[in-house]
Amino acid sequence: MIFKREILNLIDEELKKYLNKDNALYKASKHLTFAGGKRIRPYLSILVYKLKKDDVKDMLPAAISVELIHNYTLIHDDIMDNDEIRRGKPTVHVVYGEPMAILAGDLLYAKAFEAVGDIEDSKKAHEVLKVLAKACVEVCEGQAMDMEFEKYWPTVEEYMEMIRKKTGALIEASAEIGSIMADFNREEREAIKEYAKRIGLTFQIQDDILDLIGDKEKLGKPVGSDIREGKKTLIVIHAINNLDEDKKRRLLEILGNVKNEDEIKEAIEILKPSINYARELLKKLTDEAINYLKIFDKDKRKELEELAKFIMNRVY
Amino acid sequence: MIFKREILNLIDEELKKYLNKDNALYKASKHLTFAGGKRIRPYLSILVYKLKKDDVKDMLPAAISVELIHNYTLIHDDIMDNDEIRRGKPTVHVVYGEPMAILAGDLLYAKAFEAVGDIEDSKKAHEVLKVLAKACVEVCEGQAMDMEFEKYWPTVEEYMEMIRKKTGALIEASAEIGSIMADFNREEREAIKEYAKRIGLTFQIQDDILDLIGDKEKLGKPVGSDIREGKKTLIVIHAINNLDEDKKRRLLEILGNVKNEDEIKEAIEILKPSINYARELLKKLTDEAINYLKIFDKDKRKELEELAKFIMNRVY
Repeated sequence: MIFKREILNLIDEELKKYLNKDNALYKASKHLTFAGGKRIRPYLSILVYKLKKDDVKDMLPAAISVELIHNYTLIHDDIMDNDEIRRGKPTVHVVYGEPMAILAGDLLYAKAFEAVGDIEDSKKAHEVLKVLAKACVEVCEGQAMDMEFEKYWPTVEEYMEMIRKKTGALIEASAEIGSIMADFNREEREAIKEYAKRIGLTFQIQDDILDLIGDKEKLGKPVGSDIREGKKTLIVIHAINNLDEDKKRRLLEILGNVKNEDEIKEAIEILKPSINYARELLKKLTDEAINYLKIFDKDKRKELEELAKFIMNRVY
Repeated sequence: MIFKREILNLIDEELKKYLNKDNALYKASKHLTFAGGKRIRPYLSILVYKLKKDDVKDMLPAAISVELIHNYTLIHDDIMDNDEIRRGKPTVHVVYGEPMAILAGDLLYAKAFEAVGDIEDSKKAHEVLKVLAKACVEVCEGQAMDMEFEKYWPTVEEYMEMIRKKTGALIEASAEIGSIMADFNREEREAIKEYAKRIGLTFQIQDDILDLIGDKEKLGKPVGSDIREGKKTLIVIHAINNLDEDKKRRLLEILGNVKNEDEIKEAIEILKPSINYARELLKKLTDEAINYLKIFDKDKRKELEELAKFIMNRVY
């Protein structure tokens, strides 16, 4: 799938309106926001909107609100995780220091809700506000769950709940916001939520897969960093539940305690069956997601079908 | 002024509704929120509302939204400033670690806007959203200005602009939100904003005074900490502009470079005329603030007059 340049430009222009100052705070806020993100969330909002309406002008503040939230979470997450590289660039706290990076995230947070306030119709602004605030709560709850996982081995169900909140909630909100702005009826809104819920999950699972078998250059970060950090991804949790004792013991030895590149390769080899499991799950979720689109116009839903496939197949 | 227990209880009960979970994230979010804050902002919202309406039940989510924002800013500020004590208790990041403290602030942020979303009337929710988001932007901008001041000596005007944003914006928003919820007309809303703008300034200036001549026990932090940290408060900026060369040099030697308690006392002695200047400014701003209340019912405005005086005269 090729994202349309004209839509990406609309998104970037709208984002710039909200960050149109040039002091240290705004520079720090723009550092990551304009560092080449994929804009999947506002793009999704717009594609959903276009299922029923054409002129996107009035819904752009709503669409970019989710991108502003997304970028605030990345800036704060990078501080929490001590990550120094994101999208191939040094992270905000590395360049501007931690205090300014916390503040830059806080500013983007405020700007997201300022954008929601700029929706003209009060009823729609109110609905979007509810959806976005709920997603923000869930993103925090998901992130906290992820942090708690460092202390114990979660079940696959707990892991799925975590990513539905940490990653999925904002993707769901993006789609729902598009549906609010385009006056979807209840049935349509529910269908689009179910679609988005599934692509939210696939998005994170594909992230976990790419960390193991992706391309360093395209990802903008080294392959296997989750293994180095000992992260409990779906793939790792599945492996721990399904490997024989020898392989399991060896995997646990390597996780979070990598001595050389060969061990990364060894761990990935051990994880192969679980990577396949994750890929099959991706396929199933993507099929389900696409199925929920059936109630919409055949031509108009095409791009959303492609988006679902793109998220499953993406390489960065 | 004695804050009414029944109103404080309503505020606390409403806050609890939004933080009614007990995992690590919610515990961290409640740590400061229920550590004995004065609740001046939601109290102000309620007093403003009561100028025109009686039943506060429906406006409580709006009132506590500002308290949630206030607490998020304190948690993040304490991380940025490396402060270890607040309200006489260890700060959130000291107890829960920095990652969880960042996240706890982020959760309170989301909860504030969730509360705004819970306002039933969409038109009011929309207006409150706009006011609160704008205040959140200004709070960040003010905090960034404050951080920039570490690098140069601001003018009194720049300092006043900084505190109007960092501290004043949210106090103004509190009052404005009360006025929206109680259907004030334009003239009434403007008057209450002018009132609140001034008490917002007096609030910060009194904070700066208390840091120099307050009571350690009542403040919950040591006296003179601003001198120890070399903070450029209104009082210090005024002193630098008005002292003779000898005293100015001595003050600059001590600021941010305190060797013993006697030097704190010496600095405070040097700052005396500037403390008096700040007190006169407080008095002037408070008189102006009270004057803006004249258009409201004499009996009903009484508590807001007392609040203005309380802020000027408070000892903690």
